[in-house]
Amino acid sequence: MTLMEDAKRGIITPQIEAVARDEGIDARTICSCVARGLISIPNNPARDCRVVGIGKYLSTKINANIGTSRDHINIDDEIEKAKTAEAFGADALMDLSTGGDLDLIRKKIMDAVNIPIGSVPIYQAAASQEAVVDMTSDDMFNAVRKHAKDGIDFVTIHAGVNQDSLKRIKQGNRITDIVSRGGSFTLAWMLHNGEDNPFYSEYDYLLEIAQEYDMAISLGDGMRPGCIHDASDGPSFLEFITLGELVRRTREANIQCFVEGPGHVPIDEIELSVKGMKSLCDDAPLYLLGPLVTDIAPGYDHITGAIGGTFAGMCGTDFLCMTTPAEHLALPTNDDIREGTIITKIAAHAADLTKEGQKERARAVDDKMATARKNLDWETQYSLAIDGERARSIRESRITGSDACSMCGDLCAMKIVSKALEEEKEKKQN
Amino acid sequence: MTLMEDAKRGIITPQIEAVARDEGIDARTICSCVARGLISIPNNPARDCRVVGIGKYLSTKINANIGTSRDHINIDDEIEKAKTAEAFGADALMDLSTGGDLDLIRKKIMDAVNIPIGSVPIYQAAASQEAVVDMTSDDMFNAVRKHAKDGIDFVTIHAGVNQDSLKRIKQGNRITDIVSRGGSFTLAWMLHNGEDNPFYSEYDYLLEIAQEYDMAISLGDGMRPGCIHDASDGPSFLEFITLGELVRRTREANIQCFVEGPGHVPIDEIELSVKGMKSLCDDAPLYLLGPLVTDIAPGYDHITGAIGGTFAGMCGTDFLCMTTPAEHLALPTNDDIREGTIITKIAAHAADLTKEGQKERARAVDDKMATARKNLDWETQYSLAIDGERARSIRESRITGSDACSMCGDLCAMKIVSKALEEEKEKKQN
Repeated sequence: MTLMEDAKRGIITPQIEAVARDEGIDARTICSCVARGLISIPNNPARDCRVVGIGKYLSTKINANIGTSRDHINIDDEIEKAKTAEAFGADALMDLSTGGDLDLIRKKIMDAVNIPIGSVPIYQAAASQEAVVDMTSDDMFNAVRKHAKDGIDFVTIHAGVNQDSLKRIKQGNRITDIVSRGGSFTLAWMLHNGEDNPFYSEYDYLLEIAQEYDMAISLGDGMRPGCIHDASDGPSFLEFITLGELVRRTREANIQCFVEGPGHVPIDEIELSVKGMKSLCDDAPLYLLGPLVTDIAPGYDHITGAIGGTFAGMCGTDFLCMTTPAEHLALPTNDDIREGTIITKIAAHAADLTKEGQKERARAVDDKMATARKNLDWETQYSLAIDGERARSIRESRITGSDACSMCGDLCAMKIVSKALEEEKEKKQN
Repeated sequence: MTLMEDAKRGIITPQIEAVARDEGIDARTICSCVARGLISIPNNPARDCRVVGIGKYLSTKINANIGTSRDHINIDDEIEKAKTAEAFGADALMDLSTGGDLDLIRKKIMDAVNIPIGSVPIYQAAASQEAVVDMTSDDMFNAVRKHAKDGIDFVTIHAGVNQDSLKRIKQGNRITDIVSRGGSFTLAWMLHNGEDNPFYSEYDYLLEIAQEYDMAISLGDGMRPGCIHDASDGPSFLEFITLGELVRRTREANIQCFVEGPGHVPIDEIELSVKGMKSLCDDAPLYLLGPLVTDIAPGYDHITGAIGGTFAGMCGTDFLCMTTPAEHLALPTNDDIREGTIITKIAAHAADLTKEGQKERARAVDDKMATARKNLDWETQYSLAIDGERARSIRESRITGSDACSMCGDLCAMKIVSKALEEEKEKKQN
């Protein structure tokens, strides 16, 4: 029996209990949401790790992408990145390796951390060929099975890319066509082989594999817009419609899923994207990359993504995939992963300050910080900060003779007002 | 005659012409907006510098704050920061110095850059006393006159802090009371001297000085919330109401103004703040600090500010005041100023992608970037990037054998799709 099947029967599994405890939400509510597919708990029984819930009423989760490329194959580097992401608060990790011994890398990463791990099996199917288009549909499904067997908690499947998408892309209204790697492999394969996407045409077979291992499916957005110009267009919404159909089939098969979304989206179209996806996909948990709110800030796309991610979180996004400063430019370093994780964590928390179910808990932390700030209690501020070490090092790098900071010193607004109000009080008492 | 007086008579001044040219907007439209107070062009005739317009139909502008503190008095450092801010795209600069020879520092900064400069004269009035509360109302107005005479383009005046605000603050519903330095000086002065804020009670005298020098007034938000808890509360909205009254009096006196706003605001209350201020202040140009969308990210408040700033810009904010990584912790270094300026520039551009009057121009830049990205044309990407040098250094730091980047190498989605579509085309032609 899968976790979703249990939930449909009203069974409070240990996973459901763990999520309820972590999130401060009643276990019955979690169970009911899992049963209806509004919350997913990717948790492959073949691997033991921290239980993480994604979806309605829950805090916004963040994912870090790591993995080798053909140009940079160093397993130790990727393991270090995995540990860094976990240490700085990533709730999940995706291994996107395309270079080197992919089975070994995947296993080593799974051993290195204690959080759910996702993968994109088509990368392995494609990367092990001379040319991407040479893989067979068997290669594709076998890669999925192998990852499931290894204990991967969720796999991204670009089943929303099909002949309809291809027709739309051929109309040529986009600047960047397809920027999803999995989407591009699929589309190139379809063009070369003259067939539809096997993950779409044989989706039931995929569901059988997922059932066998109780592995969650992340419905990939192969058609996501790769630039501001391409946002909110026909191919994007067409894919949302297809993904909605697949969400319903996945739920019927008692497999948990979530839906992936854009990409590059101007901030005034983010609400449309998020609400469009939620509506067309029957409120499945939503997993966004970014969205990046401009194209012209390479080197800072962890920030353009955090801007979009915060707003998207407020609009109902459940799971944010971090971008790093290296996005669009290079394979990220360990420093890039740290920076990307911290900044995406900030976006997730800022979204939680607005979210039903999490708002009160999140605001209590900010209130503690505000109180510590008012009291000039620096140690408490560092302990509450998302990156207390950086805060400490900035303050301590610049000498001040005051118990405030070196920006204002004794001209600190909060010191001056506290003193003035106290003096006023004393005056009245005398 | 002041610039606003000219505009009211329909005279297209050289400043109006310059703004029209820079922004690609008809000069008659600019003139009409200046006349109605919907656009401000802070431009003190006593100092020659680049003309910058702020308000309706115009691109979002950014301001950098620099200046000494009592703990750190190094004029050369502040001049370096001023030049850095200008070089990385600041449209205006505020000298917030409180330590050292304030007249000399102000003059040196005014000489160092070619953009409008603002100041907060009460800092000088207060900082030159043993205790802030010892300044006289004459000290306050004399400081304003001195700055005006020197050629300062706009002064922040916390005229919205008055006995009504004090009454609200005493009710004690806030965690951080007052975090505006000027607001705190004013409130402490009022409490100690038992009088109302001279800038409020003698606002007409202030307007006379502003008229004499044609200096713009930035109506300071002395009551801005200093934490998420205090956002959108009574004292904030009470100040918006008072500022609205002052906006109308300022416009009647033919003096240009804009309104300052919060502060710390959760992202789901930013629209309320922005639209509240615009409504209560008769659509005066809006100048926001941040807003910072969470309290718990010291060390990263340039980013929490950019998140809030982008969304606030989309909601109608005209002028963003940058925060730096040192916010809440220390006086910023030159590096902090560079980082803060770049990131606020990203927020301003992302907002422009959504703004009436600027959307088309802003999107054209992103479209060029998207095209260069699709073509793997790296030099054009660097030239269009907000910080091309950083983009170049990230890509070039990691070797790839491909003309793509080291993230995907030859598995680049855009390469694969372009190739597949071309092959398909060729097949059809044969």
